[in-house]
Amino acid sequence: MSNKLNIGLFGYGCVGSGLFRILRQYDLPFAIKKIGVKNISKPRDIDAGWFTFNKEELLTDDSIQVIVELIDDADEAFYIVKQALLNGKHVVSANKKMIATNLSELIQLQQQTGKTLLYEGAVCGSIPALRILDQYYANEELSEVAGILNGTTNYILTQMADGDLDYQTALQLAADAGFAESNPVMDVESYDPSFKLQIILAHAFGIITQNEQIIRFGVKYITAADIQFAKQMGCKIKLIARVAKTKTELCVYVMPTFVDATNALFNINHENNALSIQPHFADKQFFSGKGAGSFPTASAVLSDLTAITQNQSYAYSKQNKELAPSFNSTGAIKVYVRTSLHLSALAHMQIEQQWHEGSTQFYIGNIPLNHAKQLTEIQNNGGFVAAFDAPPTIKLSTHFQKNDEVLFSIH
Amino acid sequence: MSNKLNIGLFGYGCVGSGLFRILRQYDLPFAIKKIGVKNISKPRDIDAGWFTFNKEELLTDDSIQVIVELIDDADEAFYIVKQALLNGKHVVSANKKMIATNLSELIQLQQQTGKTLLYEGAVCGSIPALRILDQYYANEELSEVAGILNGTTNYILTQMADGDLDYQTALQLAADAGFAESNPVMDVESYDPSFKLQIILAHAFGIITQNEQIIRFGVKYITAADIQFAKQMGCKIKLIARVAKTKTELCVYVMPTFVDATNALFNINHENNALSIQPHFADKQFFSGKGAGSFPTASAVLSDLTAITQNQSYAYSKQNKELAPSFNSTGAIKVYVRTSLHLSALAHMQIEQQWHEGSTQFYIGNIPLNHAKQLTEIQNNGGFVAAFDAPPTIKLSTHFQKNDEVLFSIH
Repeated sequence: MSNKLNIGLFGYGCVGSGLFRILRQYDLPFAIKKIGVKNISKPRDIDAGWFTFNKEELLTDDSIQVIVELIDDADEAFYIVKQALLNGKHVVSANKKMIATNLSELIQLQQQTGKTLLYEGAVCGSIPALRILDQYYANEELSEVAGILNGTTNYILTQMADGDLDYQTALQLAADAGFAESNPVMDVESYDPSFKLQIILAHAFGIITQNEQIIRFGVKYITAADIQFAKQMGCKIKLIARVAKTKTELCVYVMPTFVDATNALFNINHENNALSIQPHFADKQFFSGKGAGSFPTASAVLSDLTAITQNQSYAYSKQNKELAPSFNSTGAIKVYVRTSLHLSALAHMQIEQQWHEGSTQFYIGNIPLNHAKQLTEIQNNGGFVAAFDAPPTIKLSTHFQKNDEVLFSIH
Repeated sequence: MSNKLNIGLFGYGCVGSGLFRILRQYDLPFAIKKIGVKNISKPRDIDAGWFTFNKEELLTDDSIQVIVELIDDADEAFYIVKQALLNGKHVVSANKKMIATNLSELIQLQQQTGKTLLYEGAVCGSIPALRILDQYYANEELSEVAGILNGTTNYILTQMADGDLDYQTALQLAADAGFAESNPVMDVESYDPSFKLQIILAHAFGIITQNEQIIRFGVKYITAADIQFAKQMGCKIKLIARVAKTKTELCVYVMPTFVDATNALFNINHENNALSIQPHFADKQFFSGKGAGSFPTASAVLSDLTAITQNQSYAYSKQNKELAPSFNSTGAIKVYVRTSLHLSALAHMQIEQQWHEGSTQFYIGNIPLNHAKQLTEIQNNGGFVAAFDAPPTIKLSTHFQKNDEVLFSIH
């Protein structure tokens, strides 16, 4: 065991138990020493001697070089990660909420302690997304990053479209397959992909955000009728997280989006994730792989452990390279709205088409990005909002027209 | 300039001039000090003071920390790379033939000198393929790597299929677009992707190969009739390089292949490249991006320069992990053959279907991998050979049947 890196593992859920099985079955340079868990009474499939309920036992154990944090509770996870770094240990985590919420302090803690924190498993499951954004494109500007970042909702949307199922049936299938939590609000209200998008923003654009800065729509009240409308256009509805950069601002949103077969995301189904990147020199890059599941996410954790043995850490190279531009202010986005209420938010929409079925109203039109958040009122009342698949068109203000001939040159 | 890494650049062709333009236009931590070129009389678009015709001037300049080698001549390139490493310089290269041919010595030279050689641009153009195979999956076994590794032939095949063009017209279009060389034999006879596959084999499986070990078919004598046959099956013909691993052997080939719309490679068109990887835990990964072109390939070189500033080097972690298995010996592969000759090679084929049009014979059937090379006689005589899209089926020998229930479990 002396040649192996000793690991203190927190959490023995889907990913934690997957990592445990991998490290037990294969001859790899990592050894789990102890597993910290919270619930004493929960039955588990390995010997009780592996577990401790005292987190300090792992955090203060000098023979442990790396803490792997794979628990649900973001506050508890932050305590563990912070203490581990301060105690001179490297850390691997897959907790997107914890990382997105505390990123400034986590970067500062790494600088202060000289220890490494890696979290590839937090974004796009098995896809090496973060190290590509952070390291591979450290010296190349990106103008757009967009993708399917949530496996659970992609599974639900695939089941609804392929199986002609209603939302509740598809959600239950996702839960049965082990993808949806007992409380799926993080997935179906798009908190999960919005945290992931915050992490992407930091590595791809050097911008630290508050979660509230992201325009966020979910699939909670999607109906078979919405899916049917997409099919009539030859489209699928995919939950797309996107950041698109102009010279003057960032457009940042997570929205159910109509995509047709010309978009590679059209073919990303079930629990798969995908990321499309538009670098300045390399031209469009596309990556896909499993976005959820025990072994695929454990594989990303394993690669982070490998990276620690290779003395790799995130470069955060885009930080401070430029002033943070404004967010979601001058552009507009074309949306589809289904609602039974007549809401004030619609006053800001330039409606192009409008129809109704009984008391249900349907609208298609453009909404200014700085008013888009007001449409969340619609989905909070059982309605549904989806975007059409294109980066938002930017309305040229007088000021920008003077200085820049082309403000928006993506695609 | 003192904070920047000083570069000695060899070659000012498509990629070299792209890199020069990028580094001149953007504020990046790299500065080209001098450019070594061979042809004194060739007109170039920048001041003659940038150039030297004496390679030793760059190789012995102590102020140069990195040599970037982007010339065509593989022997000359090897001399440059070897001398640069021996003189204590890091090296970035994109010369697939040079690297594939000298990989053992290049690995040994890196160990001996402690200097780094990176060559991301040599495989899959802009896609970060090698660092994913080498570093990200250093501790995870792969069972299959397959992809479109040659942008020129993919461009030709796309033009033939989309524009109903004959081969010569499509080849001319590729040359006009700057993708095909004046002598395209490296591309259309599949030498280029076979070198790339050798490099992939080293990083993904730890196997150093001779080029002759790879089954290699090209598109040199493809006709509109072959494309038409593919279309009738709902397929496209793509030039696919593949290594598939069983418990007992590696199947390694580059072959024109019929792929249908269920394969993500179906949608990889023009000069794009793509790579599909099957890791043991992560499940299928797919990557695509530009496989040729000045800026996309220069972007890969730029990322290698970035990696040098991050103290990254290839881990070659799969080396010596296992004994080299046998190559292309026990399996069989289903092929399509068009030929005007009656050749002895066909004697080894289990023919399933056979028809003719005038004096042209068509065959579909299985050929044992250890006889597949004999079919190259067909394409050397104006015929065409293509594979059907599946890993080869493995015939179970008595010995293996005893020990292994399932010998081939890919997909």
